[in-house]
Amino acid sequence: MDALFDRHQPTLAAALKAVRERGYWSAYPEIPSGKIYGETAKDDGLASYSARLGKPFALPGHPGTAHIGAEVSPFGPALGITYPAADVDTLIAASQAAGSAWAEASAEMRVGICIEVLARLNRMSFEIANAVMHTTGQAFAMAFQAGGPHAQDRGLEAVAYAYAEMTRTPAQAIWTKPQGKGEPIVLEKQWRIVPRGISLVIGCQTFPTWNSYPGLFASLATGNTIIVKPHPAAILPLAITVSVIRDVLAEQGFDPNVVLLAADAPAAEVTVDLVKNRAVSIIDYTGSNAFGDWVRRNAGEAQVYTEEAGVNSIVVAATDDFAGMCANIAFSLSLYSGQMCTAPQNIFVPRSGIETDQGHKSFDDVAGGIAAAIDELLADPARAAGVCGAIANPATVARIEAARGLGRVIRDSAPVTVGDVRTATPLIIAVDDDKTDAHEEERFGPIAFIVAVADAGAGIEKAASLARRKGAITAALYDNDEHRIDAAVDASAKAGVNLSINLTGGIFINQSAAFSDFHVTGANPAGNASLTDAAFVANRFRTVMWRRPKAA
Amino acid sequence: MDALFDRHQPTLAAALKAVRERGYWSAYPEIPSGKIYGETAKDDGLASYSARLGKPFALPGHPGTAHIGAEVSPFGPALGITYPAADVDTLIAASQAAGSAWAEASAEMRVGICIEVLARLNRMSFEIANAVMHTTGQAFAMAFQAGGPHAQDRGLEAVAYAYAEMTRTPAQAIWTKPQGKGEPIVLEKQWRIVPRGISLVIGCQTFPTWNSYPGLFASLATGNTIIVKPHPAAILPLAITVSVIRDVLAEQGFDPNVVLLAADAPAAEVTVDLVKNRAVSIIDYTGSNAFGDWVRRNAGEAQVYTEEAGVNSIVVAATDDFAGMCANIAFSLSLYSGQMCTAPQNIFVPRSGIETDQGHKSFDDVAGGIAAAIDELLADPARAAGVCGAIANPATVARIEAARGLGRVIRDSAPVTVGDVRTATPLIIAVDDDKTDAHEEERFGPIAFIVAVADAGAGIEKAASLARRKGAITAALYDNDEHRIDAAVDASAKAGVNLSINLTGGIFINQSAAFSDFHVTGANPAGNASLTDAAFVANRFRTVMWRRPKAA
Repeated sequence: MDALFDRHQPTLAAALKAVRERGYWSAYPEIPSGKIYGETAKDDGLASYSARLGKPFALPGHPGTAHIGAEVSPFGPALGITYPAADVDTLIAASQAAGSAWAEASAEMRVGICIEVLARLNRMSFEIANAVMHTTGQAFAMAFQAGGPHAQDRGLEAVAYAYAEMTRTPAQAIWTKPQGKGEPIVLEKQWRIVPRGISLVIGCQTFPTWNSYPGLFASLATGNTIIVKPHPAAILPLAITVSVIRDVLAEQGFDPNVVLLAADAPAAEVTVDLVKNRAVSIIDYTGSNAFGDWVRRNAGEAQVYTEEAGVNSIVVAATDDFAGMCANIAFSLSLYSGQMCTAPQNIFVPRSGIETDQGHKSFDDVAGGIAAAIDELLADPARAAGVCGAIANPATVARIEAARGLGRVIRDSAPVTVGDVRTATPLIIAVDDDKTDAHEEERFGPIAFIVAVADAGAGIEKAASLARRKGAITAALYDNDEHRIDAAVDASAKAGVNLSINLTGGIFINQSAAFSDFHVTGANPAGNASLTDAAFVANRFRTVMWRRPKAA
Repeated sequence: MDALFDRHQPTLAAALKAVRERGYWSAYPEIPSGKIYGETAKDDGLASYSARLGKPFALPGHPGTAHIGAEVSPFGPALGITYPAADVDTLIAASQAAGSAWAEASAEMRVGICIEVLARLNRMSFEIANAVMHTTGQAFAMAFQAGGPHAQDRGLEAVAYAYAEMTRTPAQAIWTKPQGKGEPIVLEKQWRIVPRGISLVIGCQTFPTWNSYPGLFASLATGNTIIVKPHPAAILPLAITVSVIRDVLAEQGFDPNVVLLAADAPAAEVTVDLVKNRAVSIIDYTGSNAFGDWVRRNAGEAQVYTEEAGVNSIVVAATDDFAGMCANIAFSLSLYSGQMCTAPQNIFVPRSGIETDQGHKSFDDVAGGIAAAIDELLADPARAAGVCGAIANPATVARIEAARGLGRVIRDSAPVTVGDVRTATPLIIAVDDDKTDAHEEERFGPIAFIVAVADAGAGIEKAASLARRKGAITAALYDNDEHRIDAAVDASAKAGVNLSINLTGGIFINQSAAFSDFHVTGANPAGNASLTDAAFVANRFRTVMWRRPKAA
């Protein structure tokens, strides 16, 4: 019965060790190499992806009366894939019907199935990379990493936490209460994991797998049934995921409707009806603060876990590596055209400039240095396309237009022309914190502000205040004054934002590594949950006991 | 700095072991014996209690412009104690002002302080027993156990879970990511526990300490500041608790306002204003479903943990010990006049009766057997008073009056006349499940229904259905058919209610033992949280990181 658990037990054990120690560890290789994934893996993945285009997506046994789907690749072509679509009541009924047997399965059975699914998804990483690329606009290399192995690592991390929580209370115990000189009272007790019920996973367009896997696998491992509601522009990566889970479920004798896809069309989304449905017990949401707020207020008794958005800040106080700093910031601003919840938006710089290894740099020197580093990074169009990817949503292009007037343009956004792809390099605007608060609004996409402040301390204070008020998922500081670094550490902690200090090499503020970095703290308006901690998992099930006198 | 932690480390270690193994364990002796607590402890406790009567309660440094308090012992006299009372804004400001230093204290420091507080409270158990007795109406022995050692055990259990959660992620790690043939990327990472902020503990009248300690100590250990809002009729036990915590905090150099008392008067309660205050981040609530529903809907972004109420059921299907069963049920119905969230209300019995060690017993035989067992238990007035205690709230007396007409009276409630104490023995009413649903409404107090059902299976189904719809905290079954027992175990698990099977000796459905029994499952309308599991604690703080390249 637990053959899958036995097979994947070493992976689980390593994941459990990793989350306890939080050093570097990864279960799924991030390098899209033929040596790792097989020499034909890249071609095979593309072929598998291409074979899905222009036809209905097969999900055997999935409820659905309509076939819908209108995905268009940010790199150009329409995908032409349709997905089975059922009304909300049908999905809920199918999910409930599949629930009992899944709830009664052992923790080991469910965890074994989850890790088997992740192993299969890992082998499909090239196909998933294409699916992610052509729904999110991520360049291929990023789509592979973030959409494939990194997402799988995040899923495994959630499964590991789920297993740890489910096995924390023993399945049984003997309770022997002394009664002075009399015979003790002896009770036999047994505890059982009882899942909450239906878990709704609401995906986003930009990271359909990375942001959905933690909630999906945490709920699945703990015995809940799942309804996956993808963003209508990024259905395919989650449809493939659902398909793999359903395959493994069916092979193991479970109703595949334990996991369902709630595909919908852009103007006819079913999210509101799903959130309001009182049969839904858990909601994982990734998306805007405005809709996140609506979800939190309308979820009734359902547990809600959100990753929303924030305004991320970098404070530049001083550096021993001016070139490295500028290059590092340039990459963070350019990567996937800033369409990341972890991308920095505001760079606070003292009006009087900073001290560096290259001597004093004025405010304009710092702004110019970052702009020049972006120019250098993106000088080659092919490389630029590989870093920036494509703009996923036309609203982002409009947002760039609107932002140009908000301050002094240090570096204009420019289209990267590779075919007719909508992409854009970073727009960099200088503002003064005393004169505007334009930078305090989240402006998703390749839009950044170099914000003049009185001094480094003021920058730290402003960044923390912004995090507390508007939310922030990441923060960074460049400084060499250890007292000021300590103050920034304190301010960031109080504002509930993770702080990266003096990153100059191949690691960036945007990056959050599974098994080590918690993503989002849940301690400011950028989200109420953290990927993945115990709190993210422990309340997805309940523990119920029976007890009886033990026969002598 | 961590002297208290070192002193209490053995207690913590034993508590952590106990919650993992869930056999019998207790840190604080439940027997009110001079041999354990000191030969003069009983007299000293009464003297300490008596010395508090008729005067202002001293809480040095506690904000307050008014002195309020109108507690009247259910056993007769007014307590005449007044407490410092401040408006909500003043309390919030004082709580916030005390927050930073407490948040920055180490987990060990906070846990050491919590266990020192519990140790001191334990030594004051006789005084607290008097305070609990004269606010709740519990008889002395129960007030000692439930209000003293058992509550302290529940507090320690919460502290143990808090410590486990806070130390789950290491304080620091080195993250070394290989870079093929190049030098690895090496980051130093540090994590910090960040509490949510202000934690509001809303107490109830009947178990002011037992139900408040888990939330109070879980929040305190994890670094939050606390505002304790007692029921206006049961302030003293929590005022003593707050006083002890403030003493230890002050001794350890912390602002005692880390823990505040929000005393109020019956017609001028401040609960609504506290719940609505957006500075409150955590709410622990014990009380009615109606107000619990309001709290959950009006708490905004605050984490809410509730123990509300339910309708608890016993199913009598068969027994090998008819006399033991009747005596056990009789005690459960009589204890503290049924003023317990764990007391059974409905006893489902097959219309055609049951098989027992005394041969077949008709429905009326079973009802009569339970009634006779109550009569026997309460025959001696002094013993009756010791079991039943006093009625805490006149509404309960009115409820008994109103219930008499709901069915056939099998045993009438009678006053136990010890002085002019308001107390009442159980009212037992027979109804038929096919003809009424009067028993489906919660009727708090000494009111029980013997409910005729088609057969045992129907009883199990009815009990589970009631638990799902109205909530239930406890359930019991008497049966000797193992298949039917299995079915009841399944039904109870699905209804999210803990099941006690065939209790006939000195353990009762009402009893929930710290370190072994989870109290409330959080899986039905009787409450959304469980005392104490990881989910009860893990979300009371967040984890925030900083990372930086490690110097070579």
